[in-house]
Amino acid sequence: MTTQEQLHQWHELAQQLRIDSIRATTVAGSGHPTSSMSSADLMAVLLTNYLHYDFDNPHHPNNDRFILSKGHAAPLLYAMYKAAGVITDEELMSLRQMGSRLEGHPTPVLPWVDVATGSLGQGLPIGVGLGLAGKYLDQLPYNVWVLLGDSETAEGSVWEAFDHAAHYTLDNLIAIIDVNRLGQRGQTELGWNTQAYANRAKAFGWQAIEIDGHNLTEIDQAFSAAISINDRPTVIIARTKKGKGVASLEDLGGWHGKALKPDAAKQAIAELGGERHITIQVAQPEPGQPTLLHPQPLQLPTYKQGAEVATRRAYGDALKALGAAQPDVVALDAEVSNSTYTEDFAEAYPERYFEMYIAEQQMVAAAVGLQVRQYKPFAATFAAFLTRAYDFVRMAAISRANIKLVGSHAGVSIGQDGPSQMALEDLAAFRAVGNSTVLYPCDANQTAKLVEQMSDRQGIVYLRTTRENTPVIYGIEEEFSIGGSKVIRSSDQDQATIIGAGITLHEAIKAGDRLKNEGITVRIIDAYSVKPIDVQTLHQAANDTEGNLVVVEDHWQEGGLGAAVLDAFAGIGDLPSYDGPPLQLIKLAVHHMPGSGTPEELLHAANIDADAIVEAVKSQVRHLIGTRV
Amino acid sequence: MTTQEQLHQWHELAQQLRIDSIRATTVAGSGHPTSSMSSADLMAVLLTNYLHYDFDNPHHPNNDRFILSKGHAAPLLYAMYKAAGVITDEELMSLRQMGSRLEGHPTPVLPWVDVATGSLGQGLPIGVGLGLAGKYLDQLPYNVWVLLGDSETAEGSVWEAFDHAAHYTLDNLIAIIDVNRLGQRGQTELGWNTQAYANRAKAFGWQAIEIDGHNLTEIDQAFSAAISINDRPTVIIARTKKGKGVASLEDLGGWHGKALKPDAAKQAIAELGGERHITIQVAQPEPGQPTLLHPQPLQLPTYKQGAEVATRRAYGDALKALGAAQPDVVALDAEVSNSTYTEDFAEAYPERYFEMYIAEQQMVAAAVGLQVRQYKPFAATFAAFLTRAYDFVRMAAISRANIKLVGSHAGVSIGQDGPSQMALEDLAAFRAVGNSTVLYPCDANQTAKLVEQMSDRQGIVYLRTTRENTPVIYGIEEEFSIGGSKVIRSSDQDQATIIGAGITLHEAIKAGDRLKNEGITVRIIDAYSVKPIDVQTLHQAANDTEGNLVVVEDHWQEGGLGAAVLDAFAGIGDLPSYDGPPLQLIKLAVHHMPGSGTPEELLHAANIDADAIVEAVKSQVRHLIGTRV
Repeated sequence: MTTQEQLHQWHELAQQLRIDSIRATTVAGSGHPTSSMSSADLMAVLLTNYLHYDFDNPHHPNNDRFILSKGHAAPLLYAMYKAAGVITDEELMSLRQMGSRLEGHPTPVLPWVDVATGSLGQGLPIGVGLGLAGKYLDQLPYNVWVLLGDSETAEGSVWEAFDHAAHYTLDNLIAIIDVNRLGQRGQTELGWNTQAYANRAKAFGWQAIEIDGHNLTEIDQAFSAAISINDRPTVIIARTKKGKGVASLEDLGGWHGKALKPDAAKQAIAELGGERHITIQVAQPEPGQPTLLHPQPLQLPTYKQGAEVATRRAYGDALKALGAAQPDVVALDAEVSNSTYTEDFAEAYPERYFEMYIAEQQMVAAAVGLQVRQYKPFAATFAAFLTRAYDFVRMAAISRANIKLVGSHAGVSIGQDGPSQMALEDLAAFRAVGNSTVLYPCDANQTAKLVEQMSDRQGIVYLRTTRENTPVIYGIEEEFSIGGSKVIRSSDQDQATIIGAGITLHEAIKAGDRLKNEGITVRIIDAYSVKPIDVQTLHQAANDTEGNLVVVEDHWQEGGLGAAVLDAFAGIGDLPSYDGPPLQLIKLAVHHMPGSGTPEELLHAANIDADAIVEAVKSQVRHLIGTRV
Repeated sequence: MTTQEQLHQWHELAQQLRIDSIRATTVAGSGHPTSSMSSADLMAVLLTNYLHYDFDNPHHPNNDRFILSKGHAAPLLYAMYKAAGVITDEELMSLRQMGSRLEGHPTPVLPWVDVATGSLGQGLPIGVGLGLAGKYLDQLPYNVWVLLGDSETAEGSVWEAFDHAAHYTLDNLIAIIDVNRLGQRGQTELGWNTQAYANRAKAFGWQAIEIDGHNLTEIDQAFSAAISINDRPTVIIARTKKGKGVASLEDLGGWHGKALKPDAAKQAIAELGGERHITIQVAQPEPGQPTLLHPQPLQLPTYKQGAEVATRRAYGDALKALGAAQPDVVALDAEVSNSTYTEDFAEAYPERYFEMYIAEQQMVAAAVGLQVRQYKPFAATFAAFLTRAYDFVRMAAISRANIKLVGSHAGVSIGQDGPSQMALEDLAAFRAVGNSTVLYPCDANQTAKLVEQMSDRQGIVYLRTTRENTPVIYGIEEEFSIGGSKVIRSSDQDQATIIGAGITLHEAIKAGDRLKNEGITVRIIDAYSVKPIDVQTLHQAANDTEGNLVVVEDHWQEGGLGAAVLDAFAGIGDLPSYDGPPLQLIKLAVHHMPGSGTPEELLHAANIDADAIVEAVKSQVRHLIGTRV
């Protein structure tokens, strides 16, 4: 039984959370007080009685995890931090100001925020990743709490999470849906029909508990039931009122994302019982430490020069090798592990492999969740289908997440399957992600060396692999630094430079041979590190070859390797400037929608094969030296 | 009651569909015979008795629509076309060959394919768009049939579709899930648990019918029940066997996406009763024509020069005006219509507005479905959240769809809400879409003129709008062609050129004023058409200003406006080549993860405000003319 004293304590804290949400947003002049107020009772009980969290040690392995999926309720989260005694009231009042850690939506600039939220529907799938970490890797009893808004359940990604959480019996995952009925522009789709939410959740295999989200006893009982069950995840569907506690706001439209004016705030605070500054002692986690195996020396796979090996095959081999050496490497795949070759890791280390089925958003979100617990997730699918998770990748960058994404079957060179399976925009998409790394190997040995480096690389690291077999051109002793490149052919007489990566590097080599037979010597650069790109080597080549550059890529003409090379010659930030001969750069890339055909036919039709390269180089050399060629 | 004769006819056709799927893939040497075979009985009954479709007139308004969401079963679809008598057996045998209309996955290169499939989980949400068109716009009784694979139900987008179809009571939408239990790499998540599928579908408000997908009578009854119900959509959950009918394939792993060798094919065909060449008469649709209002003269909104108006506000005004003039314009929004200002259209033309709630994938998919029926869908949300639907945009381009997407709240200039709400990759992402158009207006009058042109523009057209108010700089008489630009400032003495668009154009103007005060005259170009970009005007400016270009954009440094400008100077396809003075191009763009702050603070911190532009121009001019400045 809940005592009157306990009820009073919760109520007082809830009112404080409401008041602080109002105060902070009023000072900021913007923000979401009403969406914070609807969840205040839920959070008061959670913070006081259920959350186990060492604020002095956010990385404590056995900390509960809390994700504010409805990130716009950031004022509530920050008010909770104040109540926990870890930020001052003064800092709380810096909400949304330049330089403040208290951004408009939570980000890991704050040490207690594991992941950025604010793109709705992402908190629960990330919570699945944390749930997997807790149950299967850490094997620690911490719980993962996720507070969702009701509107965000319209996102399919939320149902990917419902599906996967049940499949993996994540009894450590507790979702709380704040059903305040009002979205940004009016009533949500399901309004207060909490039964509809419950039916859906149950059909997906969850325990679903409907409560009055302002009844503190019901909240307490629901949390208690959630942590007691051990065969499925729990969702608490809490009927609430937006702006709860202030008559002029409560359950009224037109108040989404609006701060109160100072006078109205004053009145609201009075109505809520006046300012208070309670600090509560949040429960400490039990001691706990995951048992990881010891790292072993890495034995990368090696391939004989001249052998024909697909880089996706080498990815699979290297990942398995990495798995043997590094116990914190984890792999994910979206039901195509026999195409990406994640399957080898899955067979060798089933306890560190998570099948994500065809749910790319959930896959990337799970990777983000896993890396919160310091695991190194490698997630793979066809490169084309990583576009499905682009918003998750974007947000992962804001989360300062360290994840490794691998896209196979890039470009027209996949052949007969046709354009739906061809990634032609992935380089552009991944380059345009904050602090990302984009790698595109051309052979198996290079792939293995790059996979090794991905493991410890910070940020969003993307590796593009090729479906087709390609010749191994590098010896096993070669090293490939991120940010570097390889000059494959070079002489004092080079008249032009061909820059390729992945599949087109092999076309460049063929073109180089043919040009040589015609008396034209070219430099060939393997730009396997698309981002960061090797500016210095490109500048040197342009200097040495009269500015004649031909870039060739199996990608739409926008934003890919060609764009990376152009950027190397633009004045950007601290990049070294180029003072050589005027650039005569020809970009060979995909211009027209491809269809089906053989890889060779499609490379030719797209004008990115050796024929096209030869022609491009000749047009440059002709242009500069008149009739000499 | 089903007669024996009828059962025999269906069976014979089903066997032919299986045989033809085997034959075509064996000739091609690749493809998906077994995934075709599991659905053959379902499709035989559909084609013979339920589909109403005029193959001579694919645009017949009252045609039923059929979407093969499990696009890898393309051989089955093509076999159906042969059975319908619209492709020859010879063409069927051209499957997956270069130049054939019969690509590895279906695309609208074939006149009876409305939309490309092959990225799983997209057919049903597109079907929702067609269902909306049929029920609410065309108001015609045609049905929309969607055949899904079981694996693809793991995609959240499928549940967005379940949700929206029920919300809009799309009784004209019939989903058929081919539960053949086997995904690409083994058992699917739910296996043959058809009840789990049914429970989920029912919880989302659908009629769900579980059948044996090889029992022709059950199939017939299920289709009959599906077209009879009139208060909800129907899903038929058909338990099937992959490779059905051939003992060496049936329900066996390891056969996904594998063609049979000729000998094995011969044996399989014999087992299926041998080749046959039945042609069936598909039922014609009833006559029907939607009643559209007559177009009216367009009266675009106009704005006074000097007024402060957000371009998102102008989008809302222009869309409403377009709605008044063009009865085929339809609007969609993802629960932020009061931010994007779609709400004005929604209020004026509620019958042509569809609230998509927070489900951006479903929103874009619905737009694709609507344009199949020749409507002109404008779909808007925050630009950042369009990343959620990137795979749908990619596939829409393969569908040759004509859709208009509008992203508001672009860039750091949104201010306090923080990075999760800031689109900083949208220009890169949309530029890297086949045959796309990317527009980025800086003022209200320009926005209105561009919105007008979007309406008739083919392909994927993207408009980026700004949250903040910006001054109206153009008179109402100005015209803005797609592919053009505006030279805002120009003189014979220009020493450099500043290129901006949207919010940064205003910073460029401020910078231009300040530089003028310091005796440096600059050209200023408004590059509102980011793709296609105005190559000629850029070349002219580079010629006139010693190659000194400063490009400034509120976007990550990769793939956006700066990249578009660089591309204008690269040799790409048929672009005119540049022969002017060497380019000294400085790209100003966002380099570091922003936080919260005022728009001015954030523009300044990102080094993309007037201060940064002034400094960049000075560095260029200094570089060229020594101590003159």
